[in-house]
Amino acid sequence: MVDILHRIGVQTPTPEKVYEALTTVDRLAGWWTEDASGSGEVGGVLRFRFPPVGGFDMEVLESTPSKRVTWRVADGPAEWIGTTIDWDLRQDGDWTIVLFTHAGWREPVEFMHHCSTKWGSFLMSLKSSVETGEGAPAPRDVQISNWH
Amino acid sequence: MVDILHRIGVQTPTPEKVYEALTTVDRLAGWWTEDASGSGEVGGVLRFRFPPVGGFDMEVLESTPSKRVTWRVADGPAEWIGTTIDWDLRQDGDWTIVLFTHAGWREPVEFMHHCSTKWGSFLMSLKSSVETGEGAPAPRDVQISNWH
Repeated sequence: MVDILHRIGVQTPTPEKVYEALTTVDRLAGWWTEDASGSGEVGGVLRFRFPPVGGFDMEVLESTPSKRVTWRVADGPAEWIGTTIDWDLRQDGDWTIVLFTHAGWREPVEFMHHCSTKWGSFLMSLKSSVETGEGAPAPRDVQISNWH
Repeated sequence: MVDILHRIGVQTPTPEKVYEALTTVDRLAGWWTEDASGSGEVGGVLRFRFPPVGGFDMEVLESTPSKRVTWRVADGPAEWIGTTIDWDLRQDGDWTIVLFTHAGWREPVEFMHHCSTKWGSFLMSLKSSVETGEGAPAPRDVQISNWH
């Protein structure tokens, strides 16, 4: 089992806005994909689409305000199904620190390399969406390769 | 043992320029840190400094033109020493695909989360330095958090 790890700091006085950006559809649409729908409450399912490629359905396992959000991938690419995505938040002075873990990959396949870099890029989009109000969600996301 | 994985595609007709960007000091200074010195030949040591924080000494284990470059961390932060950094190159049409692996971390500590995101950001700088001639090496690198 191998994991994708990331860490960013968002300049904001409390974790509140970062938590909102992970749990409400309109804020998720501001940094990951404009085509986001569903419910960010525990037991709910969040649906993210990246036309024409496909997308992900995330079951919300945990949602503790300003502390932690955990998703389980219910549908999406075969390599993603059953993996978990964990967002750990804490405040450090003027920064909300986000520790990100996408756990449970079975093999370190080339697609996992791609997803790791792409997650890093989307985390920078999340940071920017909270700090400036302007992220880079799909289809306006940063292209990192021929796989987009 | 846990690894940091990344994948980017660089729009360039052959892997030559990407290989140069990983093996020659002046090109390394164009995307990672302006304070780069040493030798990129097998058996040589490349020195990267990020004043005032510190830096890394990389022993060059392999350097196969347009195919593969491998470094072993000889000096730097305790968590990095003895880890290996592997750059795998291949051409796919108009793209040079870079598969990156920073292997041999003992524990998935918070610093590893940070380094993963930071590597992703520097890989985008590498991509940009080859595609446009303009990267974002330290000290002009993209700030991702309070750890810089």
